[in-house]
Amino acid sequence: MSLLEATLRRIEPVDRAWIIRAEERQKQLTKPPESLGRLEEIANRLVAIQETLAPSTAKARIIVFAADHGVCAEGVNPYPQAVTGQMVGNFLRGGAAINALAAAVGAELRIVDIGVVSEIAANDSLVSRRAGSGTQNFCQVPAMTREQAVVALETGIDMAEQAAAQGCQLLAIGEMGIGNTTAASALTAALTGLEPAAVAGRGTGADDDCLARKISAIERAIVLHGPYMGTPLAMMERLGGFEIAGMAGCCLGAAARRRAVLIDGFIAAAAAALAIGISPAVRDYLFASHRSTEPGHEALLALLGQKPLFDLHMRLGEGTGAALAIPIIRAAAAAFTGMATFEAAGVAERENRVSRP
Amino acid sequence: MSLLEATLRRIEPVDRAWIIRAEERQKQLTKPPESLGRLEEIANRLVAIQETLAPSTAKARIIVFAADHGVCAEGVNPYPQAVTGQMVGNFLRGGAAINALAAAVGAELRIVDIGVVSEIAANDSLVSRRAGSGTQNFCQVPAMTREQAVVALETGIDMAEQAAAQGCQLLAIGEMGIGNTTAASALTAALTGLEPAAVAGRGTGADDDCLARKISAIERAIVLHGPYMGTPLAMMERLGGFEIAGMAGCCLGAAARRRAVLIDGFIAAAAAALAIGISPAVRDYLFASHRSTEPGHEALLALLGQKPLFDLHMRLGEGTGAALAIPIIRAAAAAFTGMATFEAAGVAERENRVSRP
Repeated sequence: MSLLEATLRRIEPVDRAWIIRAEERQKQLTKPPESLGRLEEIANRLVAIQETLAPSTAKARIIVFAADHGVCAEGVNPYPQAVTGQMVGNFLRGGAAINALAAAVGAELRIVDIGVVSEIAANDSLVSRRAGSGTQNFCQVPAMTREQAVVALETGIDMAEQAAAQGCQLLAIGEMGIGNTTAASALTAALTGLEPAAVAGRGTGADDDCLARKISAIERAIVLHGPYMGTPLAMMERLGGFEIAGMAGCCLGAAARRRAVLIDGFIAAAAAALAIGISPAVRDYLFASHRSTEPGHEALLALLGQKPLFDLHMRLGEGTGAALAIPIIRAAAAAFTGMATFEAAGVAERENRVSRP
Repeated sequence: MSLLEATLRRIEPVDRAWIIRAEERQKQLTKPPESLGRLEEIANRLVAIQETLAPSTAKARIIVFAADHGVCAEGVNPYPQAVTGQMVGNFLRGGAAINALAAAVGAELRIVDIGVVSEIAANDSLVSRRAGSGTQNFCQVPAMTREQAVVALETGIDMAEQAAAQGCQLLAIGEMGIGNTTAASALTAALTGLEPAAVAGRGTGADDDCLARKISAIERAIVLHGPYMGTPLAMMERLGGFEIAGMAGCCLGAAARRRAVLIDGFIAAAAAALAIGISPAVRDYLFASHRSTEPGHEALLALLGQKPLFDLHMRLGEGTGAALAIPIIRAAAAAFTGMATFEAAGVAERENRVSRP
């Protein structure tokens, strides 16, 4: 049995009985009922994921998958393709936003070359698991072969399993790949049936001409591949990116190992939506971090059944939004596990009826 | 010259030249322009507040002011007044939400008894600076005397000065006081001219009858005190709470010492709005943390000229929302100070024009 098959067999929805146990405890904590708002939902879900009333969030790992995209040949991005490899170098030297944010929130960072075109010098901080040297241009041919799609998914599963084995309770997924908002927008159109023009945005900063080329590329790809996209795996093969498949695999692997996964922005949400398409129970393990400015994000969030935790107008990727969600998740768990009960603290609960003096 | 007068003389708006310097640096960092969204605005403002391109956010202190409210006699709250003192005890024993959150985000916590009715045993962790034993019922008389208002404001200034002297770059303000959403709603009505029914909410969980009593109490207070509320200090005296005055003083003191202040929810926003009323330049030093569920909050945010950083449906107070903003502010500063420039990292900038291949 392949790693993918074994992983899919292991994924189960969370047990609602744990949610109910968590809700009961929330009512006993020294605060007005539900006054911690969404922090309570987060804690309750962590309880159900970890199956304990003492969920732990101490060790968090951000996994950034980097790969290139053949569709860049269509002029869909204002940055040259070489920037993907250059930014991986920047990650490895610690100079990118995600390095600063990972350090600021106290999370480990792993960089995975899952298919960057330019050669990256071997480096202890780099995980080299290349499914190919960039995808093909999906305006002409499928972005990847079925084998490549499975290799990239299993790389993501592996990364999640390693993190789980090394004691990480929280995983956060991010990406780097010039052209990958085009791939994510194409996948969003395929997953939702929405028009390419409704789901494609300006990505890293496309001008009007660039955006028009992006929409045209997606429209042509949907016409070309439409008849062959009956399953999420087929969509991945036809329109995906290696880093998107890696992130989808990471969601599957995390769910199989009962770990919470923080989803970055638009591109990570496309990966998460594909993971849910492959195994719907994955949904219970996901937390959408931020609302990105990309127009297709909203439709993906609806597929994920998620409302993001914040909207700071970020659109950088790299896992930066997911990184910022880590302290929120930790705070939710800390309140749940650290607060006293009304009884233990000697604090009066709400009066049933307040009589007018 | 009094501490209040000396503080007001020291407050200056930030120098826009520092904002421009920060914006210039943001453009050089290895990310698409403005792709970190509001994190960039935050960092730029920290630069201007601290007047350095290397703003520091390492040491943060959450200051929680606790006091009681005479208006509780009107039956405006579902919890008994004794809960204020009981919750202060809970803070001192480390059992409240704010204890868990302060620890989770790595911030110091100070609890100030600025006028709780019940006696609180002396404790090394408690700052006892009582302006009175609860306010008077503002449906009948002014909530406090002018002297008490000034004492409470100066207590807040003192707390900010101590924090600044002890190396805190970030201050966060929060409160505990059964009945204080009623005081904050009354102040909001006075500050904005909005109807009491439009700005009063359910606070810790008022039912319909309780909410009706709350609105009635505010309506009567506005009629009673309306002719005497020409200045923010007069509003404080007539409708305020000691903890609200303490928080307002903390905003003034922080601005005078060029420290950023994170504003918790509705009640802290009322304090911040009064501080701005007293000294408009305070605005430059404030960061609204979260959008609370209280209906009057939006009008106060408009007065503050602020958009909150997140909305997690929280309505607890205690500084819990401001605490959660600390890691966001730190992340913004970390990205600004830690990221490499395009030049240093050898990453290509955006192409001026992408030609179709």
